Amino acid sequence: MNHEPSFWTDFPETAGDLKKVSAIIEETCASQNPVVKEGLSGLFDGNGKLLRPGLLLIAAGFGRKQEKHYKLAACLEMLHTATLIHDDVIDDSPLRRGLPAVHARFGKQDAVLIGDYLLSKCFLLAAEYTSPQNAVYLARLMSRMCAMEIEQHASRFVSDLGLRRYLRKIMGKSAILFTLACHVGADEAKAARQTTERLRRAGYNIGMAFQIIDDILDYAGDPSTLRKPLGNDIKEGLVTLPLIAAVSRDETGGLKALFSKPSFTVEDGNEIMSLVKASKGVDVAYSFAEVYTNRALREISLLPKGQGQRALEKIAKRLLIRDT
Amino acid sequence: MNHEPSFWTDFPETAGDLKKVSAIIEETCASQNPVVKEGLSGLFDGNGKLLRPGLLLIAAGFGRKQEKHYKLAACLEMLHTATLIHDDVIDDSPLRRGLPAVHARFGKQDAVLIGDYLLSKCFLLAAEYTSPQNAVYLARLMSRMCAMEIEQHASRFVSDLGLRRYLRKIMGKSAILFTLACHVGADEAKAARQTTERLRRAGYNIGMAFQIIDDILDYAGDPSTLRKPLGNDIKEGLVTLPLIAAVSRDETGGLKALFSKPSFTVEDGNEIMSLVKASKGVDVAYSFAEVYTNRALREISLLPKGQGQRALEKIAKRLLIRDT
Repeated sequence: MNHEPSFWTDFPETAGDLKKVSAIIEETCASQNPVVKEGLSGLFDGNGKLLRPGLLLIAAGFGRKQEKHYKLAACLEMLHTATLIHDDVIDDSPLRRGLPAVHARFGKQDAVLIGDYLLSKCFLLAAEYTSPQNAVYLARLMSRMCAMEIEQHASRFVSDLGLRRYLRKIMGKSAILFTLACHVGADEAKAARQTTERLRRAGYNIGMAFQIIDDILDYAGDPSTLRKPLGNDIKEGLVTLPLIAAVSRDETGGLKALFSKPSFTVEDGNEIMSLVKASKGVDVAYSFAEVYTNRALREISLLPKGQGQRALEKIAKRLLIRDT
Repeated sequence: MNHEPSFWTDFPETAGDLKKVSAIIEETCASQNPVVKEGLSGLFDGNGKLLRPGLLLIAAGFGRKQEKHYKLAACLEMLHTATLIHDDVIDDSPLRRGLPAVHARFGKQDAVLIGDYLLSKCFLLAAEYTSPQNAVYLARLMSRMCAMEIEQHASRFVSDLGLRRYLRKIMGKSAILFTLACHVGADEAKAARQTTERLRRAGYNIGMAFQIIDDILDYAGDPSTLRKPLGNDIKEGLVTLPLIAAVSRDETGGLKALFSKPSFTVEDGNEIMSLVKASKGVDVAYSFAEVYTNRALREISLLPKGQGQRALEKIAKRLLIRDT
């Protein structure tokens, strides 16, 4: 695996750490089976940002970083990737990380199994090389993420989805991984209790901002740099913050009426997209992402000074203005 | 859960133990989410035989049975059920345990997630309540089962599938669970080393026979008692022992030619079914199941005498003549 994610070029220590993580993932997932091999090959070849393992390792730097941190970081990325594979099956999303999704290459049937395989390897790695508590964390994380995805799936095409429900959903399906990355990294490194708590909160806020930006990119991303199709959420009937914000500002009720249809034509999707942009739904959503980023920056500013603290500050700011 | 599996009525101790296991499963999987609740409700309501947890608990009786055995037994059944849910998604099988499969009730998308949820709860239970070694066993078991399913899926509609490959496949996707059940049950109960080894081998042979009978039932089962559709394997292009045996006896080559088609009509499937029966494929397969059962019985006869030994003997014999 030739792994050099551009996201980390300013952070040479983390970039080096992540090479180790990639090697562990590669070794753990090694399989003689050609379908497994092929299916997983594209996924860890430097196309992902390795954000979650990167955050875990930076958080570990606030205490004593150990071998198990690399294993845990690998677990987190494997769990994340497995859920992406299954999500893409569920959402029927054709692209992932700029490449055809696993199910688009091998069919949904193998994609389900490849996701399962990856999950089992993730739990195997956790059980073999880390403390039992971490296996508990990972399993709990995963059941929560599944429950959230099921809930999200059940609430498709429900246009009166409230703000609180949306925030709870993105916590459960996305920010939770960032929270765990920062918390477990620091905790397993025996960082000071207060530092561990601050890192946990920083991770949570970074994760919330990250997901809101992700949801914004589905409306306002640049299709040439974005590595998944624009408007995919809408097509799937998924209500995210830009739409929630737009509906609340939509005095004619046209947006709500449109979104209440049981399914969409391509034209419906396009019209929703432009109505959301016209009623400033994207701008309002962005201001939410800013709030979470500022909360994260506040926590980060109170961390012990040093390389790790500076890195986190840069990352939080960079994730807010990302376009991919 | 009102759990009274008829399979265990002759074994009151195990039947009692399995009520405890069912209660643990119910408690572990409890969810506020209506889809999860609904999706899992039918699965553990006494429609399954709870064979694997039953074997685990009987094996534990050869040493000192402890609380963790019930948790482990629950893990095994949950893992098994999760793989069934995903398998049914993959095979598009409409029925499971006489009820509509999860994906037939909730759609494939929720079925993938419900399977994932169950898996995560299985690993959570293992990590929280049993020794780390067991979490390792479970995760390893699962990755092997996934790899086998992927291989099986890749070899669909390949009619020259050899016998050895078939046997390796049913070991990896099915007998492995029976092997682990017997091994872990005895090992965690600190049974004598020789006894543990014998139980492991007994479990393996029971599992092999079990899967062969399962594959036979797809050809020769009674649709009125069978709780899944007859001929489903053939329809899906799955090569199992009755067909392998029949092809080797089919001098005209008609069966092989028929099976080499890229897909089947209903008529093709029916013709394969009758050709397999006419060339005694089912009988040959049955004689294989008998061989494995006899091997199991030999191991069982060498176990310390007592209730557990008698129970295993009865179970091995009964599974050979089962029609459901």
